[in-house]
Amino acid sequence: MTDDDQLDDRLDDGLGGYASLFAPVFGSAAVERALSPHAWVQAMLDVEAALVGALADVGAIPAEHAATVAEHARVAELGADGVRGIAVGSPAAGNPVPPLVRALTAVVPGAAAKSIHRGATSQDITDTATMLLVRRALAPVLADLDALADAVAALAERHRHTVIAGRTLSQQAVPTTFGAKAAGWLHSTLAATARLRELLDRLPAQLGGAAGTLASLHDRGVDGPAVVAAFARRLELAEPVLPWHTLRAPVAEVASTVGVAAGVLGKIAQDVVLLAQTEVGEVSEPAGGGGSSTMPHKQNPIRSITALAAVRRAPGLVSTVLAAMVAEHERPASAWHSEWEPVRDLLRILGGAAERLRVTVAGLRVHPERMRANLDITGGLLLAENVTAALAPALGRLAAHDLVTAACQRAVAQDRPLREVLVAHEQVLAHLTAAEVDAALDPARYRGAGERFLDRALTEHRTHRAQGERR
Amino acid sequence: MTDDDQLDDRLDDGLGGYASLFAPVFGSAAVERALSPHAWVQAMLDVEAALVGALADVGAIPAEHAATVAEHARVAELGADGVRGIAVGSPAAGNPVPPLVRALTAVVPGAAAKSIHRGATSQDITDTATMLLVRRALAPVLADLDALADAVAALAERHRHTVIAGRTLSQQAVPTTFGAKAAGWLHSTLAATARLRELLDRLPAQLGGAAGTLASLHDRGVDGPAVVAAFARRLELAEPVLPWHTLRAPVAEVASTVGVAAGVLGKIAQDVVLLAQTEVGEVSEPAGGGGSSTMPHKQNPIRSITALAAVRRAPGLVSTVLAAMVAEHERPASAWHSEWEPVRDLLRILGGAAERLRVTVAGLRVHPERMRANLDITGGLLLAENVTAALAPALGRLAAHDLVTAACQRAVAQDRPLREVLVAHEQVLAHLTAAEVDAALDPARYRGAGERFLDRALTEHRTHRAQGERR
Amino acid sequence: MTDDDQLDDRLDDGLGGYASLFAPVFGSAAVERALSPHAWVQAMLDVEAALVGALADVGAIPAEHAATVAEHARVAELGADGVRGIAVGSPAAGNPVPPLVRALTAVVPGAAAKSIHRGATSQDITDTATMLLVRRALAPVLADLDALADAVAALAERHRHTVIAGRTLSQQAVPTTFGAKAAGWLHSTLAATARLRELLDRLPAQLGGAAGTLASLHDRGVDGPAVVAAFARRLELAEPVLPWHTLRAPVAEVASTVGVAAGVLGKIAQDVVLLAQTEVGEVSEPAGGGGSSTMPHKQNPIRSITALAAVRRAPGLVSTVLAAMVAEHERPASAWHSEWEPVRDLLRILGGAAERLRVTVAGLRVHPERMRANLDITGGLLLAENVTAALAPALGRLAAHDLVTAACQRAVAQDRPLREVLVAHEQVLAHLTAAEVDAALDPARYRGAGERFLDRALTEHRTHRAQGERR
Amino acid sequence: MTDDDQLDDRLDDGLGGYASLFAPVFGSAAVERALSPHAWVQAMLDVEAALVGALADVGAIPAEHAATVAEHARVAELGADGVRGIAVGSPAAGNPVPPLVRALTAVVPGAAAKSIHRGATSQDITDTATMLLVRRALAPVLADLDALADAVAALAERHRHTVIAGRTLSQQAVPTTFGAKAAGWLHSTLAATARLRELLDRLPAQLGGAAGTLASLHDRGVDGPAVVAAFARRLELAEPVLPWHTLRAPVAEVASTVGVAAGVLGKIAQDVVLLAQTEVGEVSEPAGGGGSSTMPHKQNPIRSITALAAVRRAPGLVSTVLAAMVAEHERPASAWHSEWEPVRDLLRILGGAAERLRVTVAGLRVHPERMRANLDITGGLLLAENVTAALAPALGRLAAHDLVTAACQRAVAQDRPLREVLVAHEQVLAHLTAAEVDAALDPARYRGAGERFLDRALTEHRTHRAQGERR
Repeated sequence: MTDDDQLDDRLDDGLGGYASLFAPVFGSAAVERALSPHAWVQAMLDVEAALVGALADVGAIPAEHAATVAEHARVAELGADGVRGIAVGSPAAGNPVPPLVRALTAVVPGAAAKSIHRGATSQDITDTATMLLVRRALAPVLADLDALADAVAALAERHRHTVIAGRTLSQQAVPTTFGAKAAGWLHSTLAATARLRELLDRLPAQLGGAAGTLASLHDRGVDGPAVVAAFARRLELAEPVLPWHTLRAPVAEVASTVGVAAGVLGKIAQDVVLLAQTEVGEVSEPAGGGGSSTMPHKQNPIRSITALAAVRRAPGLVSTVLAAMVAEHERPASAWHSEWEPVRDLLRILGGAAERLRVTVAGLRVHPERMRANLDITGGLLLAENVTAALAPALGRLAAHDLVTAACQRAVAQDRPLREVLVAHEQVLAHLTAAEVDAALDPARYRGAGERFLDRALTEHRTHRAQGERR
Repeated sequence: MTDDDQLDDRLDDGLGGYASLFAPVFGSAAVERALSPHAWVQAMLDVEAALVGALADVGAIPAEHAATVAEHARVAELGADGVRGIAVGSPAAGNPVPPLVRALTAVVPGAAAKSIHRGATSQDITDTATMLLVRRALAPVLADLDALADAVAALAERHRHTVIAGRTLSQQAVPTTFGAKAAGWLHSTLAATARLRELLDRLPAQLGGAAGTLASLHDRGVDGPAVVAAFARRLELAEPVLPWHTLRAPVAEVASTVGVAAGVLGKIAQDVVLLAQTEVGEVSEPAGGGGSSTMPHKQNPIRSITALAAVRRAPGLVSTVLAAMVAEHERPASAWHSEWEPVRDLLRILGGAAERLRVTVAGLRVHPERMRANLDITGGLLLAENVTAALAPALGRLAAHDLVTAACQRAVAQDRPLREVLVAHEQVLAHLTAAEVDAALDPARYRGAGERFLDRALTEHRTHRAQGERR
Repeated sequence: MTDDDQLDDRLDDGLGGYASLFAPVFGSAAVERALSPHAWVQAMLDVEAALVGALADVGAIPAEHAATVAEHARVAELGADGVRGIAVGSPAAGNPVPPLVRALTAVVPGAAAKSIHRGATSQDITDTATMLLVRRALAPVLADLDALADAVAALAERHRHTVIAGRTLSQQAVPTTFGAKAAGWLHSTLAATARLRELLDRLPAQLGGAAGTLASLHDRGVDGPAVVAAFARRLELAEPVLPWHTLRAPVAEVASTVGVAAGVLGKIAQDVVLLAQTEVGEVSEPAGGGGSSTMPHKQNPIRSITALAAVRRAPGLVSTVLAAMVAEHERPASAWHSEWEPVRDLLRILGGAAERLRVTVAGLRVHPERMRANLDITGGLLLAENVTAALAPALGRLAAHDLVTAACQRAVAQDRPLREVLVAHEQVLAHLTAAEVDAALDPARYRGAGERFLDRALTEHRTHRAQGERR
Repeated sequence: MTDDDQLDDRLDDGLGGYASLFAPVFGSAAVERALSPHAWVQAMLDVEAALVGALADVGAIPAEHAATVAEHARVAELGADGVRGIAVGSPAAGNPVPPLVRALTAVVPGAAAKSIHRGATSQDITDTATMLLVRRALAPVLADLDALADAVAALAERHRHTVIAGRTLSQQAVPTTFGAKAAGWLHSTLAATARLRELLDRLPAQLGGAAGTLASLHDRGVDGPAVVAAFARRLELAEPVLPWHTLRAPVAEVASTVGVAAGVLGKIAQDVVLLAQTEVGEVSEPAGGGGSSTMPHKQNPIRSITALAAVRRAPGLVSTVLAAMVAEHERPASAWHSEWEPVRDLLRILGGAAERLRVTVAGLRVHPERMRANLDITGGLLLAENVTAALAPALGRLAAHDLVTAACQRAVAQDRPLREVLVAHEQVLAHLTAAEVDAALDPARYRGAGERFLDRALTEHRTHRAQGERR
């Protein structure tokens, strides 16, 4: 454990960095730590250091100042009291930057301290730090999402022939395969991951000064846009066309991209929960977790449940960030401030859901025999569409449909398997042999193009992996 | 400082209990502390103790067990490591109760430990603890709201004759008084406070066991409903008609009542921010806060701004809690979990906004001379409605309207005061003297029933105070 | 069909009054009609007539004017072109009142026309009309909710002994009864209905004039508050303490109360959908609807599904209305306007869900044999808690728990019924006879206090009915 | 007027196609018409025709069938009664496709009718139609946004030297230019437009059959994926990797991209409203609209206000669509249905806001003299930052800051212009001449890099235009 880690522990609360008592239930340790108070302060210090560096890059201040500030712009220098002081000192200005600048200035020796925060406004620091933290928090999330994609791809491959009931509007509809189902999860995970990576490539630095003109630099002989370019370069963020203090699309896109990714994970989690229902029993979560103290038989799919609980919070949080886009004049009187915790919470939520689903899918216990058994619940009715299609060439589509509908109704009314009704039906036997009826009623022979779609998703996965390795 | 307070400091993070680095900007210390991890654990311990007490009340266990558990059900007994252990031990079951029960059982000596958590399910504990915490967190909020109402009432009384422009759709419309404006703030603050108090009276205890039947008690000779009644009585919560594990109106009503109260505060904060604009300048926030390091002239209305920032988050949070009402079967697989942080955050938000507005309004600096000066900006156009009314008896309403409209257009086109145009207008002078024109153009003489409405709100305030004192 | 109905058909679109092509899927004809463009115009006309009436009541204008206006303030007088003209003429002022006033003035003969809209501002008319429409739209909704409560109560009574698996976190937990489940639906329906009725009693009229002072009346010799009182009385709305143009709690409470009621219905709909799953099959929706053209065997619980679809939109709509509470000055520049369609849509949503659930529950086909069969899926594991309790007196609770846990694990591992494992277990047989084991494993004998809670809900229902009859 | 237009008028309601009485206030006629019931039915017919066409393309049916269906798949063939029948016939299946297929089948003569809807499920039709309608509704929106960008660019160019107060947290901060402000609007409008165009390029067709396997085609000798490709090609939509019935990122991205674009417009609208306040008076909306019947002097910025009202609804609607991503199994039981009206409403909202802002900005009346006059309100305090910077080289930054702060406080306390205090200050005069003080206090000389940023935005605009012309 490094000094920084130890400090981290002292800075963070008794919960080991988690943002609330409940955070361990649905958050991820990696993301919680990446967004702790400590991490926010460090990010803001990194931004202040980059600003001094950028000023040096354009020759406005001595290079030594930049080196000195960089050396001291570490949360460990401020200590736990320093972080607390920043938090407690924030209300007067309405943001943590003024006390942060004071704290940093106090620990930077000599003339270098005078170069700190030059030309910047508080929002330059918080906005840029937010972008850094989005990147830092998304790093473990993307790793989890890549691993999730790998696990889902393996699942799809393994179950390309595993027949399962396709379910629509809560009812069994026609057969599909568990592999095809997983292929859907795979495709949407890949798409969400790709969007998050595109987002990372676009995250802009923010530097505009009091009202977006950088006047205190630019009108004192320092080329403002050149400083912005150097600043963005040092932080490996995108160089903005102009300051975006009240043009909040970059933040709204973080929120909505995370929100969409959360929704993608929510669909997977919801499927697992429904497939794991006692009465369905087609999958179980990997062991470890989900036990009940009073009901020893229960194995709750607790990771999927808590992943889904996390995901459910995304829409409300996204709506708050979208509403904050209506940011008046050159700095809004409340919209900006209202983004801070919601953006943090969106990242926490996505992190928790990604980690849980990675573990869930990697260890998912699949029960093909239950899938097969459940396909028989309707006594063959599930294949009615296929029987209709088998009869259509001979009878015409409408007549075939009517015949099969009547047969299904008879089967239901008399509580008999559809096969029994069909092979006793003169018109059916006029056109199909019993073996042909059996074939039409075999779910394994009515899987359509599912495997073709599955292979397209697997190809997409391989392409993403190849691109990922090149990154 | 008591032992408990010291423990509290150790349990809470370097931020003194605030839930995030940003919490001091828009939260309130009292509410943050009331909802800290420590406070959550204590509330759950209080609930476990009440359950043991209720079992004793109905004679199911010895009274000494209840006393022993009550004595040890204190977060100080568990220590910081205990709280951390509860948080970290939560993911397996998906909630903090199983590790809490283990921790409590470990510190309760003798046979009493066996009576802990009997008949309960985890949700009984978290739901009831949530209700306790709603009450505990609302206590300082209600004190702030009462003080805010007092301050607003004093403001209304003081400015019952202070004329100000009534503004509609961003434009000056007709005069009103600052007192009448404050009376509106007062009425809505009183109504929101009353709703919150009604809410407190309805907060129900939760006790149903694994599936809401209390079978493990009731089918073993302990009268379930009697235990529920004793349990609610001990906690001074309402006795529920039946378990509400998946009937979430009580939680949704907490959220929506808090959300509406937040909106009421948001309106006041928004008015202060707009009145404090440099170009309007009719009010200033009390000193202390709002200064800018680089712009010494700025006095940002920072408390109102950050109160409004808090309020802006309420709608999204309420929407999450409302969505969680669709809670399936006897315990939902994610809806329940998704409520925890949003309910906490709603209370935090309301607390921060109430505290800031109390301070703001109590110390608000009102500038009647600016209000009066701003009324002259339109050169009398603001009173056009009144001139129309003065002319209507003679000319008829439509003709009067057309005449005044034309006069206004001329005044605007020629950049002259409306008075000048009117007293040069033959038709006007045929019916009104110059003094009558002046009277019609005097904003102080066109205040309508504002004072009557103001007095109604002040009466309402006195009634609320009288009721409050009786509580 | 009256003339008005025929006009209604011409005014409304080819969809028979539904607000969109999709409205028939999830809306209710009664509520759609109550909120059609025609209905909005009529409500605004009613408000204008009440205002003229109120002016007459206080003696400000001749009583004949009021009678004349009342006679002509009917949408049938304006005709379809009139309604279209109001809609198309709205953008200039940003609301439909100015063209409505023009249209009404054009059809009112003689001097009475001069008394129209006197003292009022557009928002007085739209806000008051909104309150009228809330009441009118809620009338059929409350009738549906009352009928739903009756149907649920009958269901609860009929199934007070019907055993069903209690399900928590998607897994069977312990038994309960379908009656107890329905009792929960009943209690929350009654509570939501009661809140809606309380809301109706509080709906306030709005009358304040340009800036809430009623100056154009009050400063011209007409007692403003007296007009407000007469106006409210005529419309049977609550008399407001003061104008609430920018104090939007009344609208926010409409939205949130409707939102909570929608959530209550959503829980019932969700339960029906899950119980109707092919693999669960414990209930079916009444016939009529839900068939699939290509899959003749499917009986989708389509009313519950579309009720739930309606409910899902409530949280987002409520959040919009809550956000609109931040209404600046004396009339907000956008917040007010943003409420109109969301409030309408909330009522539409609730109406659709209430109607569908009334039909669903009244005709719900319950399958007790499937409920019983599903209870056997776990081979008795569901009663593990009860076996533990049966053994606890002899072994102690912890030892009993460990023994039963081990037995359950063996049963699962060996795929044997729990009974078989238990009756082969020496320690068990040392304390329990085989009959006692069977008793402990009988779900019908482990229903706890469910029936007690059920009776409490039925009592509550009878009380509500009795009160309803007195209304 | 064509026959279709006449039919359109009959199909649409008395409101000329607007979806509610209030739609003309904040919607756009073009978008309302593009999303009318008529338009939805036509889009679904287009999709059915494309499906038959695709089947012909792969040789599954005769080409003549495709031609025949295409010829008759026109809403004019169904008539107003047909559209009403589709709406009214929707509840049984829970969507309008089954009655639509019946209606289409009835008007298609001969054998071609048998090829209709083959292989498809209802959701294939509604999802694909939704994508068509997104494209159709966005066409006029994008034209408005392009025109808005042109108008904003012209505004920026025209006002590149027009000095205005930069305002932060509601207070004047430092000067900027109106051109720089407009450049910000321009950049974000361009970015939002680009994202919408990227979205259009990705809109996928949907075709999967009952459970996403296209089994009824693929297992009867018709290559499923080949049909999908042909189908997408005919509709000029993207070919999906696999069916996305329950992988809703495409719909969620429509919603969130529209939501972000709405936020971009909301910022512009909000700025206009605030700049148009009576006390600020720096811009006025173009004439036509905004007048008040009772207050002839008022010129409400009504287009911006109603644009903003539209925008305010976006966050709640986006949240509903995001929540619908948790779409279980192969077709969700409510999530899918809950998207329909919200997606429609999002497009309506964006259309209304874009149209209003285009008109507003194109005709915006800018008042540079009021901008200049408002800059003097603070008596020079606004340039305090610049005076500090002018003194810093001589005094050091901290000492300069303290000196200027004290001077500002004196100016405020004594109600004197800052210039007067400064030129009477010995320490100031020791380092700066009076002319240098004047220069430091001249807002026009403290515009920083605003013009550089402005030129970057104009360059971006030219690039977008050039790309647009190539499209």
